[in-house]
Amino acid sequence: MTMTQFAPARRTRRTPFSDAVEAAGVSAYSVYNRMLIPAAFRSLEEDYRHLKSAVQVWDVSCERQVEVSGPDADRLIRLLTPRNLDRMADDQCFYVPVVNAEGGMLNDPVALRPDEDRWWISIADSDLLLWVMGLATGRGFDVKVHEPDVSPLAVQGPKADDLMARVFGDVVRDVRFFRHKRLEFGGTSFVVARSGYSKQGGFEIYVEGSEHGLPLWNALFEAGKDLDVRAGCPNLIERVEGGMLSYGNDMRIENTPYECGLGKFCNGTGDYIGKAALAAKSNPQRQIRAVSVSGTTAPRIGTGWTLRNGDTFAGRITSAAWSPDFETIVSVGMVEAEFWAPGTTLSVETPDGPREAFIHEAFWA
Amino acid sequence: MTMTQFAPARRTRRTPFSDAVEAAGVSAYSVYNRMLIPAAFRSLEEDYRHLKSAVQVWDVSCERQVEVSGPDADRLIRLLTPRNLDRMADDQCFYVPVVNAEGGMLNDPVALRPDEDRWWISIADSDLLLWVMGLATGRGFDVKVHEPDVSPLAVQGPKADDLMARVFGDVVRDVRFFRHKRLEFGGTSFVVARSGYSKQGGFEIYVEGSEHGLPLWNALFEAGKDLDVRAGCPNLIERVEGGMLSYGNDMRIENTPYECGLGKFCNGTGDYIGKAALAAKSNPQRQIRAVSVSGTTAPRIGTGWTLRNGDTFAGRITSAAWSPDFETIVSVGMVEAEFWAPGTTLSVETPDGPREAFIHEAFWA
Repeated sequence: MTMTQFAPARRTRRTPFSDAVEAAGVSAYSVYNRMLIPAAFRSLEEDYRHLKSAVQVWDVSCERQVEVSGPDADRLIRLLTPRNLDRMADDQCFYVPVVNAEGGMLNDPVALRPDEDRWWISIADSDLLLWVMGLATGRGFDVKVHEPDVSPLAVQGPKADDLMARVFGDVVRDVRFFRHKRLEFGGTSFVVARSGYSKQGGFEIYVEGSEHGLPLWNALFEAGKDLDVRAGCPNLIERVEGGMLSYGNDMRIENTPYECGLGKFCNGTGDYIGKAALAAKSNPQRQIRAVSVSGTTAPRIGTGWTLRNGDTFAGRITSAAWSPDFETIVSVGMVEAEFWAPGTTLSVETPDGPREAFIHEAFWA
Repeated sequence: MTMTQFAPARRTRRTPFSDAVEAAGVSAYSVYNRMLIPAAFRSLEEDYRHLKSAVQVWDVSCERQVEVSGPDADRLIRLLTPRNLDRMADDQCFYVPVVNAEGGMLNDPVALRPDEDRWWISIADSDLLLWVMGLATGRGFDVKVHEPDVSPLAVQGPKADDLMARVFGDVVRDVRFFRHKRLEFGGTSFVVARSGYSKQGGFEIYVEGSEHGLPLWNALFEAGKDLDVRAGCPNLIERVEGGMLSYGNDMRIENTPYECGLGKFCNGTGDYIGKAALAAKSNPQRQIRAVSVSGTTAPRIGTGWTLRNGDTFAGRITSAAWSPDFETIVSVGMVEAEFWAPGTTLSVETPDGPREAFIHEAFWA
């Protein structure tokens, strides 16, 4: 693709951090949940090196929350996801795939309870609010469903604990993986979870109240000068190395959780939406695989690259990037059962011509 | 905002026309319904002049269709919109605002029936598919709800009839405004409607089957050489002059149809979603107005510009552009009742400082 500018509009919403993100030199934007998400600052590769060695602050406001409260809230949440929630602790973050009646993936959000009587569903890239609201309206549930003024800010990288401790106190070091705690900042308090869309460790701060966004951003940068803190964003290279799936890129409504390797989350005992359909689809005919591709620069992904074995369709590569650390093009593929065994070699059609593809046992990091 | 690149991903879907759009020199992209939409080619103003004098072909694939079929389809559609559908003709396109149980706008799509037993809802910028599917699932309706492989291509401008007649035959001239007809092209046929997101006249072709996209695009350009046909896109200046509202920009879930000037479409006689709420909200406290703003260049819209009367909040400007033809900054505002009378002068806070704002009786074109 020729270089194309990003055209701003009110519709592609700015975040509480956008002014700071632009002052920090964002060089590419994407849109996620009809909101700005930075895609690069210095360069994909320079951002990647820095993420793996220091600490970054990410504007992930686009992880919008669907807030559910009211008498039927628990009932609605249990209807929403195939996952069994019986053993979810009060301070736990739970990855809860959401499917429709046919078992097709609608979103793969993380749910938590900021308070005893409220749920937040932190969404991937689809308007899950409309599904939840539609279902609640259709069932006549007594719930309130809305998008609150909550904008997650992620702090990611090997020095994330040190930076966070300077702003929130050493108590933040005790927050365990996928657990959360309410911590004070500037006269208010935020839900802080040990989570985030990288494998480098770190936290997500659920900034409640847009007016607190820039003060928090500034406090993190002020406290982290000697840690070389920088503005960053989910990094394509790092997230593919780590096998973190992306809704819309690697899985869509036409995929079941089983195809996405999320079968273990289909363990609910109640009557959730999609239960019957999923029971019939638990032996998938295709599945997500780590795939390396030959070459030293990744062609543009476009609508995806077709995998073939001779003339036979073998799957599709949906995300790809050159990995400096693993010295290959790392990628995520949805691979047909006949060809998904680790060690299988396939051909792949890219916009830059054919390449060789190789199925791996596991992702790289 | 500094100039920022658009970062491509599979998630921000390409369309059947993207290759042609890029070959034609698209200079800025936005994302609409998680799909690419061109925002400019030569420049906003050059595109505007050309749209008003010649004919353009627009990739509006992002107007995704929600297809509803099955025994309960009619029942579901009537539940979905406040609008009375009793007098909708078989070949008619119907603007059907959709609201939630609280009467908040979820989308303002156009519905039509491509066949006797199917509905297509051509959506604005929200995942209406999830609302329709959620509602149908919650109610237990016997319907199929999905997004078909249909990508609208618009032909807009004063020479649209001439260009379309060369490709589809003179029969296209007889299609009346907001009516549609199935017309043949290249061994298949498409629903062709006299509609589109400009005031310059023209058509929308519902291209069913992605493989037909480029052949149709090429046929239009081949046939229109002497008409100076160009690739174009919805033009911010022209659509604000014409007062065409944009969901996400000018209205959102927090607005009722009455606030959006769409009260006349709240005339359904059956039991539609939001009926009780809307009955209680039919006297809006704010409403969409045409507003001119002083100055000769439009500042960036950001989150919108606050209108004030002295210290009192008076509303918000949500879309704005310098109009060469009307020699003012034309804008769309959601204005509080106390200040919405035509002739009212207000102050407006823009990123470039305060300006003067003036409430008009009607939009410009």
